[in-house]
Amino acid sequence: MAKPTTHNFSDIEIAQAAKMEHIKDIAAKLDIKEDDIEMYGKYKAKLPLSLIDKKKIEQCNLVLVTALTPTPAGEGKTTTSIGLTEGLNKIGKKTTVVLREPSLGPVFGIKGGAAGGGYAQVVPMEDINLHFTGDFAAIEKANNLLSALIDNNIQSKTRSLGIDPRTVVWKRVMDMNDRALRQIVIGLGGTANGIPREDGFNITPASEVMAILCMAENFSDLKERLGNIFIGFTFDKQPVYAKDLKAENAMAILLKDAIKPNLVQTLEGNSAIIHGGPFANIAQGTNTIIATKMGMSLSDYVVTEAGFGADLGAEKFLDIKCVSSGLKPKAVVLVATIRALRHHGGAQKEEYNTASLKRVKDGFANLEKHIENIHKFGLNPVVAINAFPTDSDEEVEFVQKRCAELGVKAVVARGWAQGGEGMTDLAEAVVEEVESGKGHFKPLYEWNLSVKTKIEIIAKEIYGADGVEFSKKAITDLRTIESLKLNKLPVCMAKTQKSFSDNDALIGRPSNFVVNVREFEFAAGAGFLIPILGKMMRMPGLPATPASEGMNIDDSGKISGLS
Amino acid sequence: MAKPTTHNFSDIEIAQAAKMEHIKDIAAKLDIKEDDIEMYGKYKAKLPLSLIDKKKIEQCNLVLVTALTPTPAGEGKTTTSIGLTEGLNKIGKKTTVVLREPSLGPVFGIKGGAAGGGYAQVVPMEDINLHFTGDFAAIEKANNLLSALIDNNIQSKTRSLGIDPRTVVWKRVMDMNDRALRQIVIGLGGTANGIPREDGFNITPASEVMAILCMAENFSDLKERLGNIFIGFTFDKQPVYAKDLKAENAMAILLKDAIKPNLVQTLEGNSAIIHGGPFANIAQGTNTIIATKMGMSLSDYVVTEAGFGADLGAEKFLDIKCVSSGLKPKAVVLVATIRALRHHGGAQKEEYNTASLKRVKDGFANLEKHIENIHKFGLNPVVAINAFPTDSDEEVEFVQKRCAELGVKAVVARGWAQGGEGMTDLAEAVVEEVESGKGHFKPLYEWNLSVKTKIEIIAKEIYGADGVEFSKKAITDLRTIESLKLNKLPVCMAKTQKSFSDNDALIGRPSNFVVNVREFEFAAGAGFLIPILGKMMRMPGLPATPASEGMNIDDSGKISGLS
Repeated sequence: MAKPTTHNFSDIEIAQAAKMEHIKDIAAKLDIKEDDIEMYGKYKAKLPLSLIDKKKIEQCNLVLVTALTPTPAGEGKTTTSIGLTEGLNKIGKKTTVVLREPSLGPVFGIKGGAAGGGYAQVVPMEDINLHFTGDFAAIEKANNLLSALIDNNIQSKTRSLGIDPRTVVWKRVMDMNDRALRQIVIGLGGTANGIPREDGFNITPASEVMAILCMAENFSDLKERLGNIFIGFTFDKQPVYAKDLKAENAMAILLKDAIKPNLVQTLEGNSAIIHGGPFANIAQGTNTIIATKMGMSLSDYVVTEAGFGADLGAEKFLDIKCVSSGLKPKAVVLVATIRALRHHGGAQKEEYNTASLKRVKDGFANLEKHIENIHKFGLNPVVAINAFPTDSDEEVEFVQKRCAELGVKAVVARGWAQGGEGMTDLAEAVVEEVESGKGHFKPLYEWNLSVKTKIEIIAKEIYGADGVEFSKKAITDLRTIESLKLNKLPVCMAKTQKSFSDNDALIGRPSNFVVNVREFEFAAGAGFLIPILGKMMRMPGLPATPASEGMNIDDSGKISGLS
Repeated sequence: MAKPTTHNFSDIEIAQAAKMEHIKDIAAKLDIKEDDIEMYGKYKAKLPLSLIDKKKIEQCNLVLVTALTPTPAGEGKTTTSIGLTEGLNKIGKKTTVVLREPSLGPVFGIKGGAAGGGYAQVVPMEDINLHFTGDFAAIEKANNLLSALIDNNIQSKTRSLGIDPRTVVWKRVMDMNDRALRQIVIGLGGTANGIPREDGFNITPASEVMAILCMAENFSDLKERLGNIFIGFTFDKQPVYAKDLKAENAMAILLKDAIKPNLVQTLEGNSAIIHGGPFANIAQGTNTIIATKMGMSLSDYVVTEAGFGADLGAEKFLDIKCVSSGLKPKAVVLVATIRALRHHGGAQKEEYNTASLKRVKDGFANLEKHIENIHKFGLNPVVAINAFPTDSDEEVEFVQKRCAELGVKAVVARGWAQGGEGMTDLAEAVVEEVESGKGHFKPLYEWNLSVKTKIEIIAKEIYGADGVEFSKKAITDLRTIESLKLNKLPVCMAKTQKSFSDNDALIGRPSNFVVNVREFEFAAGAGFLIPILGKMMRMPGLPATPASEGMNIDDSGKISGLS
């Protein structure tokens, strides 16, 4: 087996070397007139919602890219999604990749950006990783306007709703890795500054406003969801919503441009729509419904991805996003790396890059369980083995053979090293799966089941748990959910991405375990309940040596040190 | 005297009814090629710094619009600046208006936006008043990245600079009226969340990053100024600057687009450049130097404004911005309203709209002092009487006669009601003043005088004070300024805008008073010292009934209730 071509360039160097096409020419490939787009410079544009076309959506083939249980480095879902898009276009399928927008904060910490990698990137990479078209800033403002209105009402003498400050669950947000803001006390300094209370900042993608933007079907739906945001309780124990503060219109005004999907391009000049970036751990972790439908209105194939492993990302994508929006994916690509299989076979971090058939054999159980899970949704996945130079032929062949025994094609994907040319095999396999007509998406559960039952179905069927335990707090929360009449909402599981279970240490395919629901959060506006199965990080910190220190920008505006 | 035409439309209705030209056509009027601009939709664009042309700047006539001591409602400087631009274009002078960007936060409070009013507005009004092209969001991020780096360093075990948390003067910012963030405690919750300390948020325009962006000549100057931001002291009492945290490049990367001026249009299709919006109370209160120079590179006349009355805005504009950048204004327009003259003559708020020759006679002393002050800069102002329906002929005639006695033309300005057509008289007067060649700008003081002397010159010459008293704290601060070698910087006075003195109650032309410098702040990056003469508001609050409650946006995206 040929090794993938390696190269000596960083992602930003490859991206900067790319000769980009004018965005009006990218739009033209999708038959969009120049006058219909709103350009943001020469290489970014916003697309008007009027381009969404119900009929074309029905004809388009939606492909979800998900992954096995990932190692901390990630297994290359975004890179595979972009590469697959290049590959599909190469074999003659008019394809758009639809992705999440990266969060700006982590760029200055450890993590690089999220615009793909190597020769499978979306560009302009710097812009996409920084302010892009301002969507995150708009979401941040809408979130924080609601916060200001809440505290303004709490201290109002004449128009108070009687909000009990101790019950306020609505947090401020900032798209910055700033651990010092996790837990704060606000309103200090006397009567002019309001009522002191505990508060905290989450990072912007963790805002429910982001989750709402991603679930909204159109502008009036957006406003209604914003109005339904649950804030806390009055001293009389009555629930308070954003609409009680008449906040939803002003918030929607702040989102008037953010609701429009952003058009950019791949390195090979294919269309990419990048829009919305909710957290995968406490929210749905996938781009906006509007962006997905926009892509489907403009192409024959849409490739999209969902955050973390398939137990989290794919399950939420299928049971929440698809059910809510009526979308029906035709194929699922399950990204695996030999490295991650070694990990699930017990390899330590320093052994990840060392070939070991034994580790891969032992670790395959993880991938097998994910394959079984996708089958439960009525779909047969294609496995993409995201190639690394350290993969051995015998490891790859083993994976392909075992997948074949499960009725699944496993194809080596070389998008990172070769772009579209390294992805035509995967593209062919995906098209074959779609055209077989065998995929018939069905959700795992009905939304109108009881909350407990919905969680149990996911835990048993997807995680392989024996059952679910609910803490005292969770049981109290369940009662609140009943009283707020939120029990028909789907559940958006908040669980570690490192294991099928709620215990990071249980790699591979764990068995004989139960999962623990500690408490619930209610995203009444976004339209889901969030069972919390562990401590969820909502505001990252910076490392001892922040990435910002190594960045540079010269007088011509050329950036280096951004990854 | 004919009364100005009145109308029954709100600012937003007039703005929305306007037929805007495509921004590429506005650019074409300035001889800018379509390929040279970065469009942000059809009606906004960023201009590349390469269009700045030193030679053209020397040929261009710069006109500063300032005002007498204002009432709380403001006297219409922005409206007059825009109207004058329409008037100048009408009489054949190729003119661009260069203005500040409005802050988003106050839009949801009481204050309307800041895009002019009536028939003298810049459009698209909603965008300009909201996110516009994202400059404020970028400034906010750059400011808050530095904050995160400071707290990250304070809690670092391995790379600590030894910053004493009690001395940190660098605050976080948010463009929102959110009084609960004025005074907070951060870093609570244990070791993972850093070191607890007192902090607070200012509104984004109060950020020194904004002041720096407005003072920067180019990208390398921007970086250098960012690096020079003073943060606080180490436990060893050594000063700490942003460059000690290697923050300036990452901050500059966040400002790579924000540094480019924004092109929009007036209601009559003339060019408007809107860029930068620093506070007028603790900073220089005028648009970016880059924007002013851009406008001057592209037109024969540039009309610009500076915040608050001439004692603050014009003085800072002339002594800081002009001296720093080498700009030489050829004319000054002093905006006055009959209403404000009544106020300075002792009228109570409920009497502002009642004609009273006596009040106007008594109040004229305020305008007279401002006229005298402009003369001290080597320039002879033109007075613009911003017309209101309640002005009486005898009041207006009195003002014109008294101004004439001082050698100054006073012209009735009807931009609000009539647009450019109501401003040709003022335009003619301004051109006459410019073409007379009599104006020879000279600053009030030399930067290399002692800090105390610089303040005393301003206080005596401009405010009419008998002297300056320095508090104990101010005297200590003066020593720190010496030790940090910042004493050659100009002084950016932080004083109430309601009086020539530092006492709000002293209207008109007060005498027999001293002003009190309580303390200093150092904007070492922006390049000025800030003597604080009173309590300065840096984070506004929302009113009991926030403007946000009355806003609406329909499914087509049309906004109402924004003013």
